[in-house]
Amino acid sequence: MVCGMSLQDLDALLLRALAEDAPYGDRTTEAVGLSGEGAAHLLAKENVVVAGLPAALRTFELADAACSWTILAAEGSRATSGSVLAKVTGPVPALLLAERTALNLLQHLCGIAAMAARAAAAVEGTGARVLDTRKTTPGLRNLEKYAVRTGGAFNHRMGLSDGILLKDNHVAAAGSVGAALRAAKERAGALWRVEVEVTDLPGFREALAAGAEVILLDNMSDEEMGQAVAERPAGVVLEASGGMTLDRLHRVAALGVDFISMGALTHSAPAADISMELGPIP
Amino acid sequence: MVCGMSLQDLDALLLRALAEDAPYGDRTTEAVGLSGEGAAHLLAKENVVVAGLPAALRTFELADAACSWTILAAEGSRATSGSVLAKVTGPVPALLLAERTALNLLQHLCGIAAMAARAAAAVEGTGARVLDTRKTTPGLRNLEKYAVRTGGAFNHRMGLSDGILLKDNHVAAAGSVGAALRAAKERAGALWRVEVEVTDLPGFREALAAGAEVILLDNMSDEEMGQAVAERPAGVVLEASGGMTLDRLHRVAALGVDFISMGALTHSAPAADISMELGPIP
Amino acid sequence: MVCGMSLQDLDALLLRALAEDAPYGDRTTEAVGLSGEGAAHLLAKENVVVAGLPAALRTFELADAACSWTILAAEGSRATSGSVLAKVTGPVPALLLAERTALNLLQHLCGIAAMAARAAAAVEGTGARVLDTRKTTPGLRNLEKYAVRTGGAFNHRMGLSDGILLKDNHVAAAGSVGAALRAAKERAGALWRVEVEVTDLPGFREALAAGAEVILLDNMSDEEMGQAVAERPAGVVLEASGGMTLDRLHRVAALGVDFISMGALTHSAPAADISMELGPIP
Amino acid sequence: MVCGMSLQDLDALLLRALAEDAPYGDRTTEAVGLSGEGAAHLLAKENVVVAGLPAALRTFELADAACSWTILAAEGSRATSGSVLAKVTGPVPALLLAERTALNLLQHLCGIAAMAARAAAAVEGTGARVLDTRKTTPGLRNLEKYAVRTGGAFNHRMGLSDGILLKDNHVAAAGSVGAALRAAKERAGALWRVEVEVTDLPGFREALAAGAEVILLDNMSDEEMGQAVAERPAGVVLEASGGMTLDRLHRVAALGVDFISMGALTHSAPAADISMELGPIP
Amino acid sequence: MVCGMSLQDLDALLLRALAEDAPYGDRTTEAVGLSGEGAAHLLAKENVVVAGLPAALRTFELADAACSWTILAAEGSRATSGSVLAKVTGPVPALLLAERTALNLLQHLCGIAAMAARAAAAVEGTGARVLDTRKTTPGLRNLEKYAVRTGGAFNHRMGLSDGILLKDNHVAAAGSVGAALRAAKERAGALWRVEVEVTDLPGFREALAAGAEVILLDNMSDEEMGQAVAERPAGVVLEASGGMTLDRLHRVAALGVDFISMGALTHSAPAADISMELGPIP
Amino acid sequence: MVCGMSLQDLDALLLRALAEDAPYGDRTTEAVGLSGEGAAHLLAKENVVVAGLPAALRTFELADAACSWTILAAEGSRATSGSVLAKVTGPVPALLLAERTALNLLQHLCGIAAMAARAAAAVEGTGARVLDTRKTTPGLRNLEKYAVRTGGAFNHRMGLSDGILLKDNHVAAAGSVGAALRAAKERAGALWRVEVEVTDLPGFREALAAGAEVILLDNMSDEEMGQAVAERPAGVVLEASGGMTLDRLHRVAALGVDFISMGALTHSAPAADISMELGPIP
Repeated sequence: MVCGMSLQDLDALLLRALAEDAPYGDRTTEAVGLSGEGAAHLLAKENVVVAGLPAALRTFELADAACSWTILAAEGSRATSGSVLAKVTGPVPALLLAERTALNLLQHLCGIAAMAARAAAAVEGTGARVLDTRKTTPGLRNLEKYAVRTGGAFNHRMGLSDGILLKDNHVAAAGSVGAALRAAKERAGALWRVEVEVTDLPGFREALAAGAEVILLDNMSDEEMGQAVAERPAGVVLEASGGMTLDRLHRVAALGVDFISMGALTHSAPAADISMELGPIP
Repeated sequence: MVCGMSLQDLDALLLRALAEDAPYGDRTTEAVGLSGEGAAHLLAKENVVVAGLPAALRTFELADAACSWTILAAEGSRATSGSVLAKVTGPVPALLLAERTALNLLQHLCGIAAMAARAAAAVEGTGARVLDTRKTTPGLRNLEKYAVRTGGAFNHRMGLSDGILLKDNHVAAAGSVGAALRAAKERAGALWRVEVEVTDLPGFREALAAGAEVILLDNMSDEEMGQAVAERPAGVVLEASGGMTLDRLHRVAALGVDFISMGALTHSAPAADISMELGPIP
Repeated sequence: MVCGMSLQDLDALLLRALAEDAPYGDRTTEAVGLSGEGAAHLLAKENVVVAGLPAALRTFELADAACSWTILAAEGSRATSGSVLAKVTGPVPALLLAERTALNLLQHLCGIAAMAARAAAAVEGTGARVLDTRKTTPGLRNLEKYAVRTGGAFNHRMGLSDGILLKDNHVAAAGSVGAALRAAKERAGALWRVEVEVTDLPGFREALAAGAEVILLDNMSDEEMGQAVAERPAGVVLEASGGMTLDRLHRVAALGVDFISMGALTHSAPAADISMELGPIP
Repeated sequence: MVCGMSLQDLDALLLRALAEDAPYGDRTTEAVGLSGEGAAHLLAKENVVVAGLPAALRTFELADAACSWTILAAEGSRATSGSVLAKVTGPVPALLLAERTALNLLQHLCGIAAMAARAAAAVEGTGARVLDTRKTTPGLRNLEKYAVRTGGAFNHRMGLSDGILLKDNHVAAAGSVGAALRAAKERAGALWRVEVEVTDLPGFREALAAGAEVILLDNMSDEEMGQAVAERPAGVVLEASGGMTLDRLHRVAALGVDFISMGALTHSAPAADISMELGPIP
Repeated sequence: MVCGMSLQDLDALLLRALAEDAPYGDRTTEAVGLSGEGAAHLLAKENVVVAGLPAALRTFELADAACSWTILAAEGSRATSGSVLAKVTGPVPALLLAERTALNLLQHLCGIAAMAARAAAAVEGTGARVLDTRKTTPGLRNLEKYAVRTGGAFNHRMGLSDGILLKDNHVAAAGSVGAALRAAKERAGALWRVEVEVTDLPGFREALAAGAEVILLDNMSDEEMGQAVAERPAGVVLEASGGMTLDRLHRVAALGVDFISMGALTHSAPAADISMELGPIP
Repeated sequence: MVCGMSLQDLDALLLRALAEDAPYGDRTTEAVGLSGEGAAHLLAKENVVVAGLPAALRTFELADAACSWTILAAEGSRATSGSVLAKVTGPVPALLLAERTALNLLQHLCGIAAMAARAAAAVEGTGARVLDTRKTTPGLRNLEKYAVRTGGAFNHRMGLSDGILLKDNHVAAAGSVGAALRAAKERAGALWRVEVEVTDLPGFREALAAGAEVILLDNMSDEEMGQAVAERPAGVVLEASGGMTLDRLHRVAALGVDFISMGALTHSAPAADISMELGPIP
């Protein structure tokens, strides 16, 4: 596993990316006639939270097995602007061929890690944990969820096969929260708890009455969530979601919920600014 | 081609996304025991620029060939918050299985289109065009570049195989702008022009002296770029890049450059807010 | 999803099977010069529990899109020797090309379902459920676990990503049952319970003391398991495993455990006897 | 070729198996926090005929290229209960990740080899050879037929592309044994003999009259087969099939047929009992 | 099977070809802004032997499922220059997207069929048959061997898995023709004859003495081959190969050999001249 | 990149070729029982232009990672009949398994290089360059275009995504040469020139009037092309195509066109005669 993904799936992803970037080679490097061995280094152009270097650097090896690299910044560490994250050596055409694909992945994962780190910092000291969601980029879920963990937040379920979460559609289809919960607990098996989503306090109380163990408070006001925290019996886990921003996180966390999930971690984190410079580290 | 991608590549992408979300099915829907036919609709939860509906809706068909859909908002159109973008019918388990994957793609592409539209609006009336870059998400380039076009901006080259762009690394390796340009034009073939990147006015003048036809002004100040515009001979195309934000776009465009490229269009556009609601359109 | 597998994964499996059977066609049918449309039917040659017909019949469509079929025996039903399970029509060469691959899959899945049905019958009335294991044929897990369910037994976790089960190796590596359980519960997240394997009564008691909620009694004698049942607090779930045979199942189930897992369901069920006969149903 | 399969096809098979077992990692090992290098060994828990070790051990290398192994039992050898078949070293998480997939393959192939060995022993001294059939598990044919050979039995044709065998359906479609044989021999080419299936003595004699060189006696009684052996001219090869069990094999072989084919070798051989133990060989 | 290839393998081949031709679309058609439905027809620009139309036309359907076609010239038929081989309708961009890939395949297969037809004509009346070899284009064997058959020649074995042919390397490694033949016949199984290659008359006689049934006379003079024909016993099959040209074929066939194999059929047949014309058939 | 193709795509191509040649192994080598290490060498049986050795030799490594090789003839060099191009060592079964696939690729690419070399020689001294076309074998474009370059000719665009070439169909659909050119230049972007095909002098003049920069003279007589050369303004590039043969090339080149494109380079070059000999180089 590399950054939460099997090496084979990672390679397939990177090869698709290399293929879409250069279906028949690097016309510029060929036109200029570049060749020979060289060195390059990956440079943080702003303060970054490092995530995904082992995956991104793999690109160089796929471009040419003669490439090798040294990682200079640990996964999860903070690197200040101007830091060198890694150095790479290999044939110059391979370095240039892999550059953009490697950076595209790295900038994306570091961007997610940075937002996760900011979110984790926002809830520090409250006992709440920030969770990601299934709102990930198609094909990149394992990597993006790895970046969330690396940044200091936590993963909700990995997908539809991974845990049971009754949302309003399921409740409606089953007729009531109680009916949905009973059906789901009957079939869930011994290893899984069932989570149910509610959108107001009556729904919350109905879930409790039906024996809910994990309850997702979706798009509820701070006041409503505070009341839910006040009413919850021991052992019942509460997750808050809906419209979470970095600004609001601390306030919600302070209400006493156990988890806050936040789609923006994976779907709206801006890319980190990282570049590759040919040549030795200055 | 669907949204700039071959149907087969799109299907492969969506199937990978479905597989990572549900490697062995939708545990919740199975636990609740949902079945039967149903309807759902995709709902804009904020003002959006529509891009990628045909690609996103394909997910439902891949989840179950019995799904069908109607598109209610044209690609490239603006849809206001609360608008229904499409409706889908099919087996309820398939609707729920495909929901997240379809939305993840759609929210991402509409987000890019929205930023492209804002960028295009910012340069309106100046004669300049906004271009994307190769800073795309691994595996999604064709779709993301389609979203850029759909939003109203333009595509730079599709990848390393697509056009010749001499960057500082090539220039350094070749010894000088002149040497690099001569080498590249010698091998470029009759169908391609060569673009060269410069980072200051001396470099710009050296490129002109070497017969450059397309020049990329990278990370230059507004003053420097204005001077370059003033000095350029007829027929020479100028592209500005580096640190472009929506705020700065109009100012740069007004300087008289032909193109402004902007990586944020594809690597940092926040997702649009779109949801799927089970049930008929209210 | 067809028989627990995505249609695309099923197709890939069947196409690999067709390719290994006929990398360059059916030499016999070509040599005899057979052509034209025909009919065939799938015939139970012994009493069978039906499982996997929709998946198996898909083979004919992959061999030639002009094939179609009618299913005559419901999944999970018992069919007596001599029953016709399905009829197929299409080009005779396609019927003969797909025959063996379709039967190979069907005979395997019906064989598993039959063993699952016998196991389920053996525990009937005891409150215990029979579970399968991860001891499945490489590449066929989803189908085999579907056959288990179809036969009337239940699925344990689908794989290593699906639920947490501490086995003796994990306990040893962590130092003690308590240490392993604490570590796992700390990281398990709200949606998963942790199961721990013990091999004797002292281990069982240590697990209880450490707050275990689900305990796997592995290779323990009936007497030991009876004692564990007697000692367990309310709410603790017990699973028995190790050396389970159809003969022993009822005795173990009667001890009061909740689950009995049995690898033989998937790794040692003999194939059901089913053939394809060309020509209309007599 | 590894165990009758190209390395690339084997890898693809094992990667699919690893992916179905752990689509997003080994939740247990991660929860307990295991790491570091370790050793493990594969242990026969009953007397086994060794088949497939090189293929099964490859799983560890695919899980992590840092794994290595030593084979301690030759393919085709008998290993008594308690024997160590191989030892493996590598990162503990990789050992645990690959364990089940490697064992699932190995237990299956050793199970087939054991049945093949018993079948070969049953006909020893008779001059007859036991053959497998095309009744194999989808996707595993090359491996299963390798296990048959390794156990001491022989392979019939590898698939529909491999040799011509006229079955009753072909005969019926062609009108008569003679017509079918003439057509097939006309087109068979110089390198292939044509085999024809008959189900009774009149059919057998018709096949002989039509110049058959290889005849399959399907589901005929011992008496009928004995009579066929008595009547056959020199050079005509006879194969018996249908309802062969280990018990009946010697009796049929003693009748004087050349080959006996037996589907159970590949479709109903129970898995061998083999486990992996973490830690050095005691 | 389409033209000797499974539909799935054919599709994979054509999709690879489309992808290498248009990794991100047809820049010309997009630049001109072509759209709408249209018609086109495939036109023979010289006299051709038709082979591969069903496979080639499939390209249009893969480019856009809305394309359809009508075949106007039967496989194996002769079409004179100016004949329309097929017509296609569909979206104009799809017609232009698929045009080159479809023609590239069709021109290649018709070229092979034409050479096969000329070769078959050259031996007409002699009793000899012309065979192809394994000298095919990587990835196109099934299609190319289909074109050979369609043109009127015959297929030698499909590959290394398909029949036993002892070449000089095998003989040398085994020590002698006799040793090689004995080893191979021992393991060949009942369904296969063994062919052995000899390069002179002493080798030929040694093969006969060792019981050879099929003998390949490689690179022997007409005189030597004539002598071999004269000496061969009844039932022994003779194949001639090595340096066969269309000119020499009749002379060799008249010597009395059974088969003449000719690599040029598949590795050196010039492409047939066929074009696609947009618009209805004039 | 190996011979113009990514290593991964090359491997996939070679593995498909190996799989079609030996879906279940090399029956001959197994029958004879060959094993052990050995050496072999690739031998030119006629004068050849070397192209594709690195790609072809890769086959041996894919057949068995224990194979290794030494290249003895540089890409693009001339090798006389009897020259050894490369030597290979490895397990004898692997050498024999890979032999045909490696040679099939090598003979094809060397054949193309030889025709390209003859074409390049034909125009030597004229200033014209010979170009290939998109008339390549499905799946082999990158390799075949590499062979063209290696032989000394030049590549036209790599595919439909690579440059804009308005052919008669586009002109007809757009209404006129002028309309087509204006539309295409409007959308072409700064990096691409637009080429337009004309078939007579009036068309040529219309193209010039519309500002054409690159003009393809298709199927025009030598006289017409000479006139076009005479009329062309400075800076306008002319390409000749249609019915080019090695004989006619020099005459056309001497007319003063810049490029001559020739489909036969890739679709009709006969294979070079190269064989593999087991054993050390004599």
